[in-house]
Amino acid sequence: MTSPSVTASIITIGDELLIGQTIDTNSAFIAQELNKIGVWVRRRVAVGDVYDEIWNALDEESKQSDIIIITGGLGPTADDITKPLLCNYFGGKLVVNEEVLAHVKYLFEKIYRRPGPILERNLKQAEVPDVCTVLHNARGTAPGMLFNKDGRVYISLPGVPHEMKGLMTSEVIPRLLNEFRMPAIVHKTVFTAGQGESVIAELLKDFEPALPAHIKLAYLPNYGMVKLRLTAKGNSKAEVETELQPYFEKLQELVKEYLVTNEDEGLEIVVGKILKEKNKTMATAESCTGGYIAHLITSVAGSSAWYKGSVVSYDNTVKENLLGVQHETLMSAGAVSKETVIQMANGAVQTLKVDYALATSGIMGPGGGSEDKPVGTAWIAVASKEKTETLKLNLRFDRQRNIAMTAANALNFLRKFILSDA
Amino acid sequence: MTSPSVTASIITIGDELLIGQTIDTNSAFIAQELNKIGVWVRRRVAVGDVYDEIWNALDEESKQSDIIIITGGLGPTADDITKPLLCNYFGGKLVVNEEVLAHVKYLFEKIYRRPGPILERNLKQAEVPDVCTVLHNARGTAPGMLFNKDGRVYISLPGVPHEMKGLMTSEVIPRLLNEFRMPAIVHKTVFTAGQGESVIAELLKDFEPALPAHIKLAYLPNYGMVKLRLTAKGNSKAEVETELQPYFEKLQELVKEYLVTNEDEGLEIVVGKILKEKNKTMATAESCTGGYIAHLITSVAGSSAWYKGSVVSYDNTVKENLLGVQHETLMSAGAVSKETVIQMANGAVQTLKVDYALATSGIMGPGGGSEDKPVGTAWIAVASKEKTETLKLNLRFDRQRNIAMTAANALNFLRKFILSDA
Repeated sequence: MTSPSVTASIITIGDELLIGQTIDTNSAFIAQELNKIGVWVRRRVAVGDVYDEIWNALDEESKQSDIIIITGGLGPTADDITKPLLCNYFGGKLVVNEEVLAHVKYLFEKIYRRPGPILERNLKQAEVPDVCTVLHNARGTAPGMLFNKDGRVYISLPGVPHEMKGLMTSEVIPRLLNEFRMPAIVHKTVFTAGQGESVIAELLKDFEPALPAHIKLAYLPNYGMVKLRLTAKGNSKAEVETELQPYFEKLQELVKEYLVTNEDEGLEIVVGKILKEKNKTMATAESCTGGYIAHLITSVAGSSAWYKGSVVSYDNTVKENLLGVQHETLMSAGAVSKETVIQMANGAVQTLKVDYALATSGIMGPGGGSEDKPVGTAWIAVASKEKTETLKLNLRFDRQRNIAMTAANALNFLRKFILSDA
Repeated sequence: MTSPSVTASIITIGDELLIGQTIDTNSAFIAQELNKIGVWVRRRVAVGDVYDEIWNALDEESKQSDIIIITGGLGPTADDITKPLLCNYFGGKLVVNEEVLAHVKYLFEKIYRRPGPILERNLKQAEVPDVCTVLHNARGTAPGMLFNKDGRVYISLPGVPHEMKGLMTSEVIPRLLNEFRMPAIVHKTVFTAGQGESVIAELLKDFEPALPAHIKLAYLPNYGMVKLRLTAKGNSKAEVETELQPYFEKLQELVKEYLVTNEDEGLEIVVGKILKEKNKTMATAESCTGGYIAHLITSVAGSSAWYKGSVVSYDNTVKENLLGVQHETLMSAGAVSKETVIQMANGAVQTLKVDYALATSGIMGPGGGSEDKPVGTAWIAVASKEKTETLKLNLRFDRQRNIAMTAANALNFLRKFILSDA
């Protein structure tokens, strides 16, 4: 894709990013929001709490980007580097902003209700460079700041994710839309499951080279699924969407055997939509996934309409007492077996009074494997009142990824079971 | 902290990072591993699948860093930009590496067992620039590549996280230790809970300025907890640790009222250690956290020693049928109430036959709130056979963060309950 006219760089500040103690989720959110309005993010840069590194990053990114967004370095215990640096960089001095001061006082007196006087370090949050436009941070004490220099826009945001998000949505995006004339960028996504990216790519080997230059296809493998994203740009959203549509339909046709959804959404959402449409309910009985499937499903707002709950039967006594797995079966076949997951799924249909239940049992590692059942062995069962189906996985990753892969495979197995259920 | 002598930059390649569809976890892992051996990561940069951007990033980072690590751009559906670019940048040409070819064939024939011949795009993974040292990727088909130029080391790794991790641990780190003389960097971390960073900073207002220049304190707020990290460097690990110890002890003393642990570990690990030491067991009964607490606990390898399971009672019928919450209580006080969480926790102690149970019920949003019980209202109960305690939270974040905050507060509440239990 050739770059559209408005470009951005994101600079995140903080030693914690450079020693790997914090995963940078802020950049992804900022990039998403910018992308939605047609801004092309060229680069993301993370630097430490070091004056020269921050200064150099500002200089470098200014060379090619129209918008530079900085996060971090503004909290009440920050090293007092960022705000003085912004004063020097843009030629201003720190002054108390009365509106921010009133907001800080309001938060401490009415919302946080901490006993005692407001600390000096909290009041200092109201100091801003006198050359900036203050962006109101409804969710916290550190305001956002906007600077204009040489036709570029610089925005400094606090690093606390929910404060940054509020500022991006309510302050930053509307101002950028006002300041720049944006091209339209449209993404269309399909999810496939059941094959790796090279098999999917083989299905698309004639499709991809035949795409026009301004339409791009990307492969994003994601826990046993492959996300295929078409991206196009043009003058108006409607125009781009119309142009993209036949390619999007062709793409779905080519991968139809493995197609899960033509929306950018996870399996837990896809399964929820199907259940809601069929007016059916489900529950889970989780051993090796330990509540992770329940967590994925309940992360979806409104999931209580189709999801009743889970028995996380980590201990065998819980499998017996709450799900009715037979002691005999656990003794003879073991907890990680086809027989056990079948009984878990059937038990959950009964006990939790649902139409469908999904059960998992496996060995996620690093310990607990044997020659018969090595680490990565996982059994999945799906049951309705009428029938039960099972699937065995042989995974070869670390504990966290084995759990995530089992959950993804289980949800896809459930999806196919429900769809094939008359 | 003044920079130690060996510095690194991490360059991640991929449009998905710049449109925010993927969160960059690779950089954090690479940074952690480099940090452990005393390499100071100066910058992390993400660029798109654009030849010039990748080339410029290599040029820029080479100016100041000794080690440049690149991830991404090497998969079977990659845009064929990265490897030709590496050839041009380091002056070589693509050749088939026989060992890599044998490995690719081995994976497809013996491990993946995909029907049909190996695809051309998979075989191409064995092509590498003839000026690189090949790093064996035991977990996948795309090899790592190491280049030397002007006294700097450049390493190119695949972007698939578990492949990258395997390569970092088994190939990259041993080679860097061989190539460079590293200073020792030591981090010591304490976790506090129950107060925000500004209150903690106030406790440390004399401590922090009195630290020697080469010992640095960082505040890392994290879901209702504040992580305090001391970092020091020197010639040997033993020497640095000895020097850091009195400051570390003093730090723990100053925050003792809110101290959770003096290790870099989450609450689920802290609670697990206490239970294991006391030879006690626990379970959870989760409504609003929907299995997230169970997931946190079961993410810890070996947690089956103290954790028996969870009833995720998302639906009220599950609260009644599996936990014995009275229908009357649900009708009069409601699912989100002190009375209900008390019955949930007591029910879980009984049903799951454990020493301690933790229960949650709340309204995580965005919908479902009322004037009496606005979004963000959450009740927590902890019970043993002898007593029950409750805690009410008033959160004001989005759904995901409300769930995470409820889980963190619940685990800390449980920790204090167990510690005060004779």
